[in-house]
Amino acid sequence: MPSSIIAEPVVENAAVIDTAAAGPAIAPLAVSIGDPAGVGPEVIAKAWAIRAAHRLPAFFAIGDRRSVEAVWGGPIGLITHPSEAIGLFDKALPLLQLDDPGNIEPGAPNLAGARCALDSVEMAVGLARSGAASGLVTGPVAKSQLYAIGFRHPGQTEFVAERCGVATENVAMMMVGPDLRTVPITIHRPLARIVEGLTMDLILSRARVVVRGLIRDFGIARPRLAVAGLNPHAGENGAMGREEIDIIQPAIAILREEGVDVTGPHSPDTMFHTAARAGYDAAICMYHDQALIPLKTLYFDMGVNLTLGLPVLRTAPDHGTAFGIAGKGEANPRAMIAAITLAGQCARARTAAIAA
Amino acid sequence: MPSSIIAEPVVENAAVIDTAAAGPAIAPLAVSIGDPAGVGPEVIAKAWAIRAAHRLPAFFAIGDRRSVEAVWGGPIGLITHPSEAIGLFDKALPLLQLDDPGNIEPGAPNLAGARCALDSVEMAVGLARSGAASGLVTGPVAKSQLYAIGFRHPGQTEFVAERCGVATENVAMMMVGPDLRTVPITIHRPLARIVEGLTMDLILSRARVVVRGLIRDFGIARPRLAVAGLNPHAGENGAMGREEIDIIQPAIAILREEGVDVTGPHSPDTMFHTAARAGYDAAICMYHDQALIPLKTLYFDMGVNLTLGLPVLRTAPDHGTAFGIAGKGEANPRAMIAAITLAGQCARARTAAIAA
Repeated sequence: MPSSIIAEPVVENAAVIDTAAAGPAIAPLAVSIGDPAGVGPEVIAKAWAIRAAHRLPAFFAIGDRRSVEAVWGGPIGLITHPSEAIGLFDKALPLLQLDDPGNIEPGAPNLAGARCALDSVEMAVGLARSGAASGLVTGPVAKSQLYAIGFRHPGQTEFVAERCGVATENVAMMMVGPDLRTVPITIHRPLARIVEGLTMDLILSRARVVVRGLIRDFGIARPRLAVAGLNPHAGENGAMGREEIDIIQPAIAILREEGVDVTGPHSPDTMFHTAARAGYDAAICMYHDQALIPLKTLYFDMGVNLTLGLPVLRTAPDHGTAFGIAGKGEANPRAMIAAITLAGQCARARTAAIAA
Repeated sequence: MPSSIIAEPVVENAAVIDTAAAGPAIAPLAVSIGDPAGVGPEVIAKAWAIRAAHRLPAFFAIGDRRSVEAVWGGPIGLITHPSEAIGLFDKALPLLQLDDPGNIEPGAPNLAGARCALDSVEMAVGLARSGAASGLVTGPVAKSQLYAIGFRHPGQTEFVAERCGVATENVAMMMVGPDLRTVPITIHRPLARIVEGLTMDLILSRARVVVRGLIRDFGIARPRLAVAGLNPHAGENGAMGREEIDIIQPAIAILREEGVDVTGPHSPDTMFHTAARAGYDAAICMYHDQALIPLKTLYFDMGVNLTLGLPVLRTAPDHGTAFGIAGKGEANPRAMIAAITLAGQCARARTAAIAA
């Protein structure tokens, strides 16, 4: 396979492996390395190193070999096709080499590295779409670097959605922790512009995506949604904002008519404690920090970003490039391990659903 | 003492007691009963019942005896002056009876009960201002009920501030959990109106109140503040909102010039996890849910609302009247116990500071 960027490579057969974890056999996962000057290479390599203890499904990295070697002394096995990752996974970190980005120094991002990061995720999407990979896990990128090479999306999620031909309103970003799943309706907006982006249609489209995702990727037969209010105390019957009355309650009513098990709008501050979390499978949140604050407060270094609504499975560790610690051996692979684990679990749930 | 409402009763001497907990002797705490049809009477009585295990400082309730008797079978000792609470506290729940509100049914609020709730907090303020009580702990009220009897404040905090002659911008509402203190700058505003209420002056005035409060009420010699951004990722250098650049950073710069140990603006979603919390004494938050979501996610039934900037010490359990469970014996006194405990600790810290 050439190392140039391919949107949808044609492969003869999806490789199928049986992983240590329970469930049906799945093809290996494609892990894009993210910005090679960030902590991506390190956390991917560290995850591989402790694959047995975490019963990780087989995966392969896509990126630049030298950026891994710069931060890790373990074995790397170059592959030219995902299927080769299966036999290799026990012995070395399988890696699909992209075009040589030149010298990459950990902690010092440059444009060649940004190009490598983008190529990496693009190839991962292609391999997942083809079935050669059972899903993709994306390493952290630096948006400021990507913008400098012409990237026009708010984040990798939107880029992946576009590459899959899915409109972003039909995609949902789910943040996943051990006992909490949250989904922001509006995402990368200044606080002052949240309200103008919050519509009943958007709540409906994302909530429907979430319901389908919980069924397909988590095997939950009848998902329970809890919808947050927008305002303090969910507006107190209109005394502190009318969006609950005008937008959120009508959306909930329609979802209920569609047969969805849904409650709300809930006071945003009282729906994330331990007992409350047991009452739903996903919290539908109105904005970024409403979804992210509870998740990261509870599960800072183990949160996973799962994109729902795509034809392919995609997860990402919920942290950035952390250029400040790149190359120092300090990066914690916990979130990457969680992202790989979740991708494997969801891939198996999908496979099981199709087989059933 | 008459049971009519008094703003500032004149008493001869503040009663002084030595409590089981460490620290200087303090006068008893005044606990307003809140709406008598809510869970206030029950959680106050339950707190008294387990006073020894929690080493609670002496306190007395202000309200209606029958509303306590309706939900609790323990001993009540009527008092006419706070000083009588000291000798009585070991044997009975000391209670200062207000004008008889008539029949109160748990779970069924009425206007006489609302009047009783308001009278109760007003008397508690007066006793604390006089020194007869070392501070006040306010039970939960129902704002919709209070509005029906002419109450015009967003909450009890503003009412207490007015009774103390302090402008609300010079008061700060601090939410206190075991290892987290958060302070919202804007409070009871619809999300769409947060930005118009967020000014550099308000950040400065509240932050200064917080610094003084941490010194005086918590005995922290050099308080460390962490200031949150308003927007996702604290605006990403203006890419997702400019309030950090235009309002928050300048406020931080001024605080720093004044010698305050302050960091920020921080990305709101990454400043509340365990390791982050260890780095500051209080988080200065830009809006209600930014402050309340992390606190209540972590410490749902033990959060305390502490009002800083008043001449008197005031705490409150961070929950509502819970009319739905009132009278059923199910109310959890944990937050009331935490509010009484914190009030006692802060009262002792103030006393120690004055004595030093």
